[in-house]
Amino acid sequence: MTKDVPEQGSFSAKDYHDPPPAPLIDPGELTKWSFYRALIAEFIATLLFLYITVLTVIGYKSTTDPKLNADPCGGVGILGIAWAFGGMIFVLVYCTAGISGGHINPAVTFGLFLARKVSLIRAFMYMVAQCLGAICGVGLVKAFNKSLYNRYGGGANSLAEGYNKGTGLGAEIIGTFVLVYTVFSATDPKRSARDSHVPVLAPLPIGFAVFMVHLATIPITGTGINPARSLGAAVIYNKEKIWDDQVHFNSI
Amino acid sequence: MTKDVPEQGSFSAKDYHDPPPAPLIDPGELTKWSFYRALIAEFIATLLFLYITVLTVIGYKSTTDPKLNADPCGGVGILGIAWAFGGMIFVLVYCTAGISGGHINPAVTFGLFLARKVSLIRAFMYMVAQCLGAICGVGLVKAFNKSLYNRYGGGANSLAEGYNKGTGLGAEIIGTFVLVYTVFSATDPKRSARDSHVPVLAPLPIGFAVFMVHLATIPITGTGINPARSLGAAVIYNKEKIWDDQVHFNSI
Amino acid sequence: MTKDVPEQGSFSAKDYHDPPPAPLIDPGELTKWSFYRALIAEFIATLLFLYITVLTVIGYKSTTDPKLNADPCGGVGILGIAWAFGGMIFVLVYCTAGISGGHINPAVTFGLFLARKVSLIRAFMYMVAQCLGAICGVGLVKAFNKSLYNRYGGGANSLAEGYNKGTGLGAEIIGTFVLVYTVFSATDPKRSARDSHVPVLAPLPIGFAVFMVHLATIPITGTGINPARSLGAAVIYNKEKIWDDQVHFNSI
Amino acid sequence: MTKDVPEQGSFSAKDYHDPPPAPLIDPGELTKWSFYRALIAEFIATLLFLYITVLTVIGYKSTTDPKLNADPCGGVGILGIAWAFGGMIFVLVYCTAGISGGHINPAVTFGLFLARKVSLIRAFMYMVAQCLGAICGVGLVKAFNKSLYNRYGGGANSLAEGYNKGTGLGAEIIGTFVLVYTVFSATDPKRSARDSHVPVLAPLPIGFAVFMVHLATIPITGTGINPARSLGAAVIYNKEKIWDDQVHFNSI
Repeated sequence: MTKDVPEQGSFSAKDYHDPPPAPLIDPGELTKWSFYRALIAEFIATLLFLYITVLTVIGYKSTTDPKLNADPCGGVGILGIAWAFGGMIFVLVYCTAGISGGHINPAVTFGLFLARKVSLIRAFMYMVAQCLGAICGVGLVKAFNKSLYNRYGGGANSLAEGYNKGTGLGAEIIGTFVLVYTVFSATDPKRSARDSHVPVLAPLPIGFAVFMVHLATIPITGTGINPARSLGAAVIYNKEKIWDDQVHFNSI
Repeated sequence: MTKDVPEQGSFSAKDYHDPPPAPLIDPGELTKWSFYRALIAEFIATLLFLYITVLTVIGYKSTTDPKLNADPCGGVGILGIAWAFGGMIFVLVYCTAGISGGHINPAVTFGLFLARKVSLIRAFMYMVAQCLGAICGVGLVKAFNKSLYNRYGGGANSLAEGYNKGTGLGAEIIGTFVLVYTVFSATDPKRSARDSHVPVLAPLPIGFAVFMVHLATIPITGTGINPARSLGAAVIYNKEKIWDDQVHFNSI
Repeated sequence: MTKDVPEQGSFSAKDYHDPPPAPLIDPGELTKWSFYRALIAEFIATLLFLYITVLTVIGYKSTTDPKLNADPCGGVGILGIAWAFGGMIFVLVYCTAGISGGHINPAVTFGLFLARKVSLIRAFMYMVAQCLGAICGVGLVKAFNKSLYNRYGGGANSLAEGYNKGTGLGAEIIGTFVLVYTVFSATDPKRSARDSHVPVLAPLPIGFAVFMVHLATIPITGTGINPARSLGAAVIYNKEKIWDDQVHFNSI
Repeated sequence: MTKDVPEQGSFSAKDYHDPPPAPLIDPGELTKWSFYRALIAEFIATLLFLYITVLTVIGYKSTTDPKLNADPCGGVGILGIAWAFGGMIFVLVYCTAGISGGHINPAVTFGLFLARKVSLIRAFMYMVAQCLGAICGVGLVKAFNKSLYNRYGGGANSLAEGYNKGTGLGAEIIGTFVLVYTVFSATDPKRSARDSHVPVLAPLPIGFAVFMVHLATIPITGTGINPARSLGAAVIYNKEKIWDDQVHFNSI
């Protein structure tokens, strides 16, 4: 909070040289087991992320449904849903950071590709793994209880009444910016050189950023800052309005 | 979040050699005081875990009971119950990590035994200590207020209406997988060699994983990913439906 | 979570020698400025703790009062109150840990005195500072809005209906045990020698332990695990039933 | 929590010399790119802070409006709003700490200027950047949905009924004191010399302090401990009562 960090002389010796940008195409990657392990990690992480969060959304809707249940306060609330999203991102980024880098979100993968932190092949394969994982995760929830899943909209994003598409798009753009900004700040290698504990702590602010964005934008669009999550829910739920909104939100 | 962790040259010297697998039977353990101290730590931790969480569940049900109380929002909500489970795991894993390894959950002990991190004797004795601790913890809550305890179902797990047993079992299996996956990721010794602060931080993502799983599956089964918790509540509460579900959930 | 911490050879060189027990009476302490600075820190921390938490309790009661407000869900809920207690302890222990040790709670001071971590004089003076701070903190809230303060019971602890005094006493004893157990685990000097980051992280599990205990026991006694908090509220609110309960709870 | 920190001999070598006070006017600063980068960081951080928090407040009010929505528990609650403020401060202080020091709040900048941690020019320019960022952030929310924004008071602070102006002012003074006290404790350079991980962890207690103050004082004044936030909301919302309260609160 003060500007005197450089005075902590004990860190001054760890000078940092920016790593060279990742090559666009790196055929060597494809021969390494660690590359496929990373793809599996992204697949499992996105699957678990979608499974837990969509189940939380549907559980919330079923416990507060006035037709089934007289108690309107029985559910976890929007606060609980926002915690489910933010908390899962914290846990999964923590778990997979050492294996795949813990992207989980295609928007994050794309941002890191633009910054030349990952190669084109890796970025593309990560996104495929994330989308497949998202579809499987939502499919699992649907397999558990098809009638509840269909009745409560399947956790798919759609615009709330009273907001137009431009607003929804704007809210998604700024929300995604908050997330990607936090990811870049938290994993900035110059920062790592200064205080070497940051990579370990990075999942916490990233998870909180996701939590905050959901608190603010669930009442507008249901928050689709993760294109894989929006896609997974839309593929499995598959209704026209959802698809139409989906195209706009994920054009970012 | 990026793949450049290896470039942090300052850690490269700490190469890690996988520890040899724990022996199946290690008679030497039985002569050490630290082994019995670990059993006591597991017993106390599971006791406190069950005491706090079951008390929270019963307090929630009594403050929101329409017969006693006109205010449906007076209680802590499902969100508060999920915090009680996740937060207690965080605190207790933090407190006992240096003494017993902070398992608390027989499923975790079993997972670590399969991975040959603990010996057969230690795994068996830990599970016994955990189950005894769970029974004592729930018994303490019942001793405090028997009538409230019996009226509100004793915090025992049972299936919600609208879900069949297969779904409940599936939800418990995936929930337990999320927990054990987080435990293994957070305590991976290869990771410890790279960034030496992880063992200290590990309790936080483990606690959050428990929190998340409860948010998602409380509306389905009440969440029994801790077999000791399910057993303790079932032993003390002791009703037929509970036992019947219990057998299914803990076959995992 | 595993037992392999000793294998992290990089820490093995930092052997730890238990510090000698603090003397019962250490006249040298009284001549040091740091001793009086510690007393001021305890006074301010307890004052701020009581101020924020009692204000939260009263704000909750006034926003959910059916006479003033039609919305029963407008307040922060028991969950919010539990966060206020746990979160303030986290912040204040973090802030004062380096100055006074961050006790804030006479029960913690007493526990540390029994373990001979602090001298008799220091323990006594800390308790005096804590009690004065608590009284000033509650007095400040009363000064802000006397009528609201009196109408909503002043944040003082009293037994809920349906529980007898033995139960309340038992719940307070176990709650205080959870807190003191966490404090001792988190600040164990043997642990510090192994992983040197623990003292910095200790406030987080301590704060969470307070949060958990409040979640579980607010519906029973309002949770008085901090004798200074109970005393401060009782002195300023000053009704017979409160005092009577107070004597029992703080006999621990 | 104990007084034995000095015994951790491994840190004793890192003796700390207080940095010299920042000069009142340092013309050299104005020629450095890092100074302007810091201004941009403060501007963006304050913009995002206001955007997320005001959107959360308005979303809460629209989901719980009895005219639009029959469900009084649909919103995030005061607890959710307090999380939005505290969590955003945590994320943004974490992100900008290495660039601008992560002030975000003019009261913090002013406190650090009084302590001679920042120069007069830097303090003044930071406050300008923060106020502009706040106005843009609130403006963005208003641009998204003007009718909702105006209907729900624009997130501007105003006194609740039943409290007089002196109380509101007192609550704001103490709330700001809690925040600035935490900032100074968490970033104390003497502390950094002892346990070198503190600067990294500092955003967490600072964010929690903001969370706690909001929990306690939202029912009184809506909590305006950040003058930039109060100003931004007041400039864009622009009603007489708001301005009148604003003058009192920000005289601190």
